[in-house]
Amino acid sequence: MERGLTESELIELLRSRAPGSSRLRTGIGDDAAISVPGGATATTVDAVVDGVHFRTRDSPPEMIARKAVATALSDLAAMAAEPGEIYVSVGLVRGSEDDFLDRLARGLAESAARYGVALAGGDTVASPVLFLSVTAVGHVASEQELVTRSGAGPGESIALTGEIGGARAGLWLLEQDDREGAGPAVDRLDDRIRRKLIDRQLAPEPLLQTGSALGRAGATAMIDLSDGLITDLGHLATSSAVGIEIDADLLPVAAGVDAVAAAAGRSPAEFVLGGGEDYELALAVPESALEAAVAAAESSGSGLTVIGRTESGPSRVTVRQDGRLLQPAPGYDHLA
Amino acid sequence: MERGLTESELIELLRSRAPGSSRLRTGIGDDAAISVPGGATATTVDAVVDGVHFRTRDSPPEMIARKAVATALSDLAAMAAEPGEIYVSVGLVRGSEDDFLDRLARGLAESAARYGVALAGGDTVASPVLFLSVTAVGHVASEQELVTRSGAGPGESIALTGEIGGARAGLWLLEQDDREGAGPAVDRLDDRIRRKLIDRQLAPEPLLQTGSALGRAGATAMIDLSDGLITDLGHLATSSAVGIEIDADLLPVAAGVDAVAAAAGRSPAEFVLGGGEDYELALAVPESALEAAVAAAESSGSGLTVIGRTESGPSRVTVRQDGRLLQPAPGYDHLA
Repeated sequence: MERGLTESELIELLRSRAPGSSRLRTGIGDDAAISVPGGATATTVDAVVDGVHFRTRDSPPEMIARKAVATALSDLAAMAAEPGEIYVSVGLVRGSEDDFLDRLARGLAESAARYGVALAGGDTVASPVLFLSVTAVGHVASEQELVTRSGAGPGESIALTGEIGGARAGLWLLEQDDREGAGPAVDRLDDRIRRKLIDRQLAPEPLLQTGSALGRAGATAMIDLSDGLITDLGHLATSSAVGIEIDADLLPVAAGVDAVAAAAGRSPAEFVLGGGEDYELALAVPESALEAAVAAAESSGSGLTVIGRTESGPSRVTVRQDGRLLQPAPGYDHLA
Repeated sequence: MERGLTESELIELLRSRAPGSSRLRTGIGDDAAISVPGGATATTVDAVVDGVHFRTRDSPPEMIARKAVATALSDLAAMAAEPGEIYVSVGLVRGSEDDFLDRLARGLAESAARYGVALAGGDTVASPVLFLSVTAVGHVASEQELVTRSGAGPGESIALTGEIGGARAGLWLLEQDDREGAGPAVDRLDDRIRRKLIDRQLAPEPLLQTGSALGRAGATAMIDLSDGLITDLGHLATSSAVGIEIDADLLPVAAGVDAVAAAAGRSPAEFVLGGGEDYELALAVPESALEAAVAAAESSGSGLTVIGRTESGPSRVTVRQDGRLLQPAPGYDHLA
């Protein structure tokens, strides 16, 4: 089973499984895919690499494919764009088993179907390390519907969907499995919570419906949490030229994060303020639209928590706890 | 100099150098780039990997960037699309010198400017091997202007731009440099021709103007030569459901290819029929449009040579030489 699929076989496999869309006229199999976008498009690229963003020992190929697709689509969610097409380039290690490639291709097609996008094209190349680079194109009728990072003004609420810190705690649990034998605090962790934290790391969900609903409800600026709350709010603050102050006591922390942080000998703040990959949405919303935003998030199955405010002044993020200014854990500026 | 740029520094470097375009509303620096395409789009993805498609020992970073951009844009040329935007994801080896990254970023921006496209977005990730995946988006006013692989009918001419075999010969010369000391036939090779063959391998040019001009002139199907003449004509034959017969004596072979093939102990046909990466265009054109196609190619600085014909019958490529049927060198179906 180790001869490996030829490029044409792999393309045929993808083509036979690739969902299409109404905008897409020609998908996989020509020099380029043809589409008729209408309106405005939002385009983003996200790459994941074995050993950096996932490990083949932790994730079956379907899950690797899904994480690659989900993280790219999360950027579209943060723009409030309707997902349209994805294009995937895959670096394949020579001699990978047919079964692995088949499952990776199936994972790509299933993820596309799951999130309602067309798998419109891509490239497969030989590489000493497995990587996937996903280009995602989203659509709206007019560019005014897209929510950038730069539209927030002073005096607006900063809100967060869902709960954070879980992906970082899940990563620690996976690394702990490597080290064999977890500490006592983690042994007491409910199995269901443990699994949820690990899933959060391995199988994030892009909040596509929530992002669109929040855009319609009046979010003025939005970003997805990939690098960590402080770093990502910092991007929003810089782009919008506002300061942001958040209250640590208001943060919606995922169940089990405190216990894992304790077992890791870290402060929960480090996981919650600095840990990335939760793929929740952080947004600015004016007072007048706050009620609509909460309702929009809830109608798409997500909670929304106000965690702070924007203010005029320098573009920085400050964190208060019990009224005191915290020296925040720096967001990690990473090449990952 | 080895601390490495942070992701924000690299993004800032790219942003400061990235050419924009009229369709692009927001480029690098938000969750996604915003554009207003109008008409129809052609989208393609091409990835290149160190040690597979280039070697850092042969190519300075500017040239690596340029080849990555050029090979993606070549697909747009083959669609007769006007190049619009590129999105680049880069896998960077940790600890790469700042100077290398700076030159790679400059190479991306310069290539974008050279080919008149906006560098609209991308992603940088840590990777154990350097790779670049380039997504290129081209535009036309209406989808009918795009030339696919599938529009050829029987009884049309098959034509080629430029000359072929050069990139394969250039690759052999680079490999020969590894082995140290070239054979006698190659020692007699004119230095200028030798350099041209190597450039053909390392710095291909996408035939953007030629592709558009050939589309307007009436090409019914078109493909760029990346995998080799027989393989790529095979794709065109299959997509168009026609047979293709070409005459080996008509092939426009690049100067020096015969000498290099002889030194390599290979038949010239192997380099010319099977060697890839020339990035010339192969097209089908009906008799009535042939004169216009020749004029279109010439006006954009390219030659056009008729090398065969399409015919009704099974979708295969046959090669004749002196009236005899050649057993063609199989195009290599590769993961590269």
